[in-house]
Amino acid sequence: MTVANTGEFGLIARVTARLGTGPACLLGPGDDAAVVAAPSGRVAASTDVLVEGRHFRRDWSSARDVGHRAAAANLADIAAMGGVPTALLVALCTPPNLEVRWAEELADGLAAEAAKVGACVVGGDMSASPTLTIAVTALGDLGDRAPVVRSGARPGDVVAVNGRLGYAAGGYTVLTRGFRTPKLLVEAFRRPEVPYAAGPEAARLGATSMIDVSDGLVADLGHIANASQVGIDVKREAFAVPDQMRNAAAALGVDPYQWILAGGDDHALAATFPRDVALPAGWAIVGTVGEAGGGVTVNGRPYRGAGGWDHFK
Amino acid sequence: MTVANTGEFGLIARVTARLGTGPACLLGPGDDAAVVAAPSGRVAASTDVLVEGRHFRRDWSSARDVGHRAAAANLADIAAMGGVPTALLVALCTPPNLEVRWAEELADGLAAEAAKVGACVVGGDMSASPTLTIAVTALGDLGDRAPVVRSGARPGDVVAVNGRLGYAAGGYTVLTRGFRTPKLLVEAFRRPEVPYAAGPEAARLGATSMIDVSDGLVADLGHIANASQVGIDVKREAFAVPDQMRNAAAALGVDPYQWILAGGDDHALAATFPRDVALPAGWAIVGTVGEAGGGVTVNGRPYRGAGGWDHFK
Repeated sequence: MTVANTGEFGLIARVTARLGTGPACLLGPGDDAAVVAAPSGRVAASTDVLVEGRHFRRDWSSARDVGHRAAAANLADIAAMGGVPTALLVALCTPPNLEVRWAEELADGLAAEAAKVGACVVGGDMSASPTLTIAVTALGDLGDRAPVVRSGARPGDVVAVNGRLGYAAGGYTVLTRGFRTPKLLVEAFRRPEVPYAAGPEAARLGATSMIDVSDGLVADLGHIANASQVGIDVKREAFAVPDQMRNAAAALGVDPYQWILAGGDDHALAATFPRDVALPAGWAIVGTVGEAGGGVTVNGRPYRGAGGWDHFK
Repeated sequence: MTVANTGEFGLIARVTARLGTGPACLLGPGDDAAVVAAPSGRVAASTDVLVEGRHFRRDWSSARDVGHRAAAANLADIAAMGGVPTALLVALCTPPNLEVRWAEELADGLAAEAAKVGACVVGGDMSASPTLTIAVTALGDLGDRAPVVRSGARPGDVVAVNGRLGYAAGGYTVLTRGFRTPKLLVEAFRRPEVPYAAGPEAARLGATSMIDVSDGLVADLGHIANASQVGIDVKREAFAVPDQMRNAAAALGVDPYQWILAGGDDHALAATFPRDVALPAGWAIVGTVGEAGGGVTVNGRPYRGAGGWDHFK
């Protein structure tokens, strides 16, 4: 059965029936707008869009996987401000011949990923389109904390990372070469494991800047370096290369540090902290903040491996 | 110059440079998430997506027109809850050969429409896509009022409308027949004139339910009738047909009431009120709420003219 068979309102009814609720959801799907609690008197909001063929492929990822990843990419943006996600809104554009089952499982993935942080899908929109497209907006609460922005890093700070690096990029390379294993990497590409709680934790610890690694560590630290007008040097030795990643990289003839330093889509959190902050488990110090001028360097040298990801190139 | 020439980050810089700000914008574009004031401790949020060829055509509407309409469709949803819009987030998916100028003028239209209500564009995302697609999320504040939902209409209430009906549908018909006039109708299709302030006004007056007319009056009142478990009868004589609409309809061989009763996209507000409420100028009483059973009728009879708009049909 396709979405053309159920029609727009039939599809909306089927999908919304699968969505859970959450404590911040004061009014869920079905009206002109949803109403979401914003107890701190302000709301963090971020939008990300996923386009078939560019951000996902239906032969590489299940609908549920795509839902998990679409939600994770947005929820990570809220965490990277130090916020706790509260709600998602989802616009789905789909060819009319899409199987209803696919849309339902997409909703399951979105709802399950949101539920990890106590958030829920509160609304959205649907339209036919030749191109399967999922636009997600995440809302979140900052509590009594100031948002952790990109512009606060200061010379002398340390750079720390929480979460995986290089896994999703490794999985992507594996899939592009026609393989389906190692599962560790392929699954990481399909469903990122985002350290959501580390975002508010970093804010409480006094992080001076933070970003989620979606374009690649060097590129994303470049955003912090630019916004903060500082230089950042990361130490290659600070990154452990897991055995499965090392073996897969060797088999594919790839430098695993390329995945770690330049691969995106794991949505690890990278933050800067005053150097005297005692960082809890989960955070690994990978570099230092210096004076402006050098941009982002690796072991003191410009990194040629990656300029990040430009969606129009 | 195309967006492929500027690249993603170049385009983002060019577009964000054109956006204004507003009182609710605590942190605008450029970080992982925006931060928007939500003084009432909750936020109204709504998402709408516009797909080229389905919601707009570049040969019918300028980029600025499309921006106005994309913003208006979302801002109207906030007004229909009784809220005051505060912010927009915009995801733009575009073929790489799009002229940069088009994206810039789209941003101008979005910002100008938002500015009408004191709101601003606080963030978004961009991606390449074969299909030009604009997903907009609007946020808004409800003040100290309860949201006006679709489910509160009660038998004995009156139905009132604020704003235009049938203008955009008339303009759409005119354009589909290859004409460009009358301008009144064509411009209404390009840029709806939404009575934003009437939303919070209705909430203060004690509206029992409200919706913005995007699918067509009869179809949208049907949503209220379903959600409230009531019947609604509208009076055909309650609707004035402006001369230009009457003449255009006659020239095209169309019943203008078809546009008024079944045409969407003007984003008028339709609300129900207790019958003793004195309605200020701008509100026209067009019908009454009765017991459940009959759905929506026109002069007591089922209306066969329109089932609304199903995007997958």
